[in-house]
This record gives sequence, structure tokens and C-alpha cells, in this order.
Amino acid sequence: MKTIVLLFILATTIATSHGLDLDHGKENKIVPRELKAFSSAHYERDIRCSSWRLGVETNNIIRFKTVPAKCKDYIRNYFLGDQSRADTKAVLSEAYSYAKSLDIIKGANYTWVFDIDETLLSNIEYYADRGFGTIPHNATDFNKWIEKGKLPALPHSLKLYNKLLALDIKIAIITERPETQHKITVKNLWNVGYRKYAKIIFKDTKKEIYKGKTTLVYKLAERKKLEKEGFKIIGNIGDQWSDILGTSTAVRSFKLPNPLFYVA
Amino acid sequence: MKTIVLLFILATTIATSHGLDLDHGKENKIVPRELKAFSSAHYERDIRCSSWRLGVETNNIIRFKTVPAKCKDYIRNYFLGDQSRADTKAVLSEAYSYAKSLDIIKGANYTWVFDIDETLLSNIEYYADRGFGTIPHNATDFNKWIEKGKLPALPHSLKLYNKLLALDIKIAIITERPETQHKITVKNLWNVGYRKYAKIIFKDTKKEIYKGKTTLVYKLAERKKLEKEGFKIIGNIGDQWSDILGTSTAVRSFKLPNPLFYVA
Repeated sequence: MKTIVLLFILATTIATSHGLDLDHGKENKIVPRELKAFSSAHYERDIRCSSWRLGVETNNIIRFKTVPAKCKDYIRNYFLGDQSRADTKAVLSEAYSYAKSLDIIKGANYTWVFDIDETLLSNIEYYADRGFGTIPHNATDFNKWIEKGKLPALPHSLKLYNKLLALDIKIAIITERPETQHKITVKNLWNVGYRKYAKIIFKDTKKEIYKGKTTLVYKLAERKKLEKEGFKIIGNIGDQWSDILGTSTAVRSFKLPNPLFYVA
Repeated sequence: MKTIVLLFILATTIATSHGLDLDHGKENKIVPRELKAFSSAHYERDIRCSSWRLGVETNNIIRFKTVPAKCKDYIRNYFLGDQSRADTKAVLSEAYSYAKSLDIIKGANYTWVFDIDETLLSNIEYYADRGFGTIPHNATDFNKWIEKGKLPALPHSLKLYNKLLALDIKIAIITERPETQHKITVKNLWNVGYRKYAKIIFKDTKKEIYKGKTTLVYKLAERKKLEKEGFKIIGNIGDQWSDILGTSTAVRSFKLPNPLFYVA
């Protein structure tokens, strides 16, 4: 009995520290819970879900509608464990090292472009309540959530934002949110600490110039406009490849992790 | 005693199945080996090395000279465990799904670009003997290895290569290897099964047109030449972002994992 208890404690500790999910004992009462957690099936699943996540982050896996159902626990553990925060921190620390290395010329309009959702602000609470990306996107439901204006800042993004301002770098925000969400967005940003920026650009749904266009096309067109206005885009950060690829790209771009959804 | 033995067996099994390294008991005789393997220091290290690897794969961390010394065991486990193979397989399976989805027009010169090192052929044996990327690159030593012409194929790349040929897609190989390695390279490729390609392009060191230029500049210039010659580049695959980014890009590009070294 002592052995079993010790085994269970060790297994639980290791499983938790490796972000594994132990809550899988319901279907099969014969296999003890603490052993089942380490079955080869679990191991295989985590290996494959890790490959899936890497595929998404490297732009190899594109246009996915939902997170694969079998990866729900894996993605939940990714966010609730330490890995997601560590990954985000690593990107933002690299971004700051780059910014610091620049020879900033005063008044030269050096500009850093930020995306909003999953970059400045986090919707993780929304997705946590809806299966961590495994449920198809519902625009009505999502817009209701956005309209609450209660999104928290990604802590490391806020730090970078303030550090860039201190370096005399201008901020331009380009979001795929529509102009109708302008007011609530600015309020939400203000409340969590994003208060100073040279530009904030919404996907103008009134003029419909970007109707049917991808976010990639919209964002590169807006970056081009910024360049024409005299902004020198030295940095760009977003959670989607469509935030940073294309033309009029920044001198250096940074891709924040986001294995929850895909925006073309 | 029975408990300790059981704990050790369980710990070893779990550690191995999670690609952890148990061989760390040398410095400290007080902490038992099987417990030390799961210390928080190890956990923290693996989290941070995982973030480092993701940073490299997503082009956030660039121009690194060596793999961080503290990540040597992590990177070794990545290659000797199942994750590296699974990651590679996921990319190549995505690439094939894309190729299959195309409406291939006979005689339309649809072309797929391949890189050689860490894409068609693997140097993992070389790096395994030299600290898994933690030792600075030595060109003389590396060229000696290449000149042996004994590199194995990446099995999943060879599969994709043959499947693309079967789909009537042409192959173009662009490598940063110099023209002086032309003969041994072709021989090596032939011996492991890469026998049919429309083009093989080496970084021409004689004309010195690319001297001092990055691989990115060389490769995009060569892709542009291919386009002018009538090749329609529908796919491109490499282990470095410099293989696929820039202009004259393929309709879709694929980034194979490589946390060992960086080529600008």
C-alpha cells in the first residue's frame, strides 16, 4: 500500500510538472489512473500534438478551422502550465534585445507595429471556456465578448510596449477588428495600460475596401500607407503570420505563439 | 527497498518516455539519480530550452552561433527521442497534402525547390559527434565530412521527393554548397535515392557573384532565374528560413525543423 501511495505521489508530481493530464480514468476502471496517464497512447498523443503545434507556429500547417479534438488536453496544458508563458517571454525578450541594439535617431519616426488580439490583449479566458480552440469560431459570440472590453494585457507585451516608448520608438497598432469596435477597443487598451500610440488602425468595414481580402493583404496595405506617411517600421509583432509576412515588412518581425486559431 | 526499486523503474520509464536525460548523477552523490532527473532545475531547463527551440523554428531567434550549452541534453533528446522525427513527418505530410491538392497541368513546368543539408540529406551524425550544435562551426572539419559523401537521406524527404515526381512535378535543388562539392554531392544524392531532378544549383564560388551575400539573397536570386527559365515554383522546402523567405517565393513554402545551426 505504501508503495502504491508513493508511486501515485511521484506519478502525479511528474505528470503535473510535465503538463500531462491525469483526469482520464473515467472510461476504464481496470487500469489505475496513475498508470494510465503514462500509457504509450498518451505519450504518442503528446508527441503528435507537439508536432501539430510546431507546424502551426512555423506556418507549415495553415487554414485550420479548429484545434484537433485529440489535442484539447495538450493545448490546455500548454496554456495552464508554464510553457506558453515561457514561449511568449522568450519572443518578447528577443524583440527587446533587438530594439535596444538599434541606433535610434530622435525624430526619425522609428515605429513598431503591434497587433491587438493575442498580442497586446489576451482572449485566453474566452477560449478556455470554449474548448481551447477545438470548437468552431462563432463571430457573434466572440464579438459579444470583445464588446465587454474586459480583456487583460499580455504582461510581457505591456512591458515591451513601455520599454519601446522609453526608447523613443513610436507605436502603431493595426488590428483586424472592425471600426465599429474602435471605442471599446481604445477603452480596453487604456484600462490595462496601453495609452500612447501614434496610430490605431481598424479594418474599415464601412468603405469595404478590404471586404473579402485576407488580413495579410489588409495589414501589408496599411503598413505601406504608414511608410508613405513617413513612419519607418523597424519592428512588428503579432500572433499570426498574416500580421507580419508580405510586403512593407518591418526590419525585424516577431511571431508570438498562438496554437488556438488561424487567420489568413 | 522494494519501494525504491519500483520508484526507480517507474521514474526511468517515464523519464525515457519523455525524452529526459537521466545521466546527471556525476556531480552530486547525495541526491539519488532517479530523483535528480525530475528536479525543478531540470524542469525549468527543459521549459526554457523548448522556448529557445520554438524561437529558432519561428525565426524569432536569429543569428545564433551555437546551441546554448545548457540545452545540449535537451537538443540531444529531441533528436534521439521521437519528437524530431514526428515534427519532420508532420511537415512533409502537410507538404504532400498540398501537392496532391494541386491541379497539375502536364508540361506546365510545376516545380518544387529542395535544399540539401538537413532537407534531402542529414548531417545529424556529424552534429551528434560534436555536441549537438553547442560547438562553434568549423568549416574545414565540416567540408571533410561532406567530402566523404556518406550522408543518409532524411527518410520522409525521400518519400516526398518520389511522390512529387510521381505527380509529374519537377524538382530543382538549390544548395549553399560550393561548386567544388558538385561531384561528391550528386554522387551522394544518387546513392541514397535522389536521382531525378531538372536542376541542381550550387553557390558558385568561382564567379564570386554571391561572395559576401547571404544565403537568402543567393537563393531568391536563383529562384528568380528559375522563374525566368519558365519553371513555376509551386513548392519549396528547407530547414532554414533563408531557404524560403524573400522574393520569388513558392506558392507554398515549408520549414523543416533544425535547432542545430543558423544560416542567414
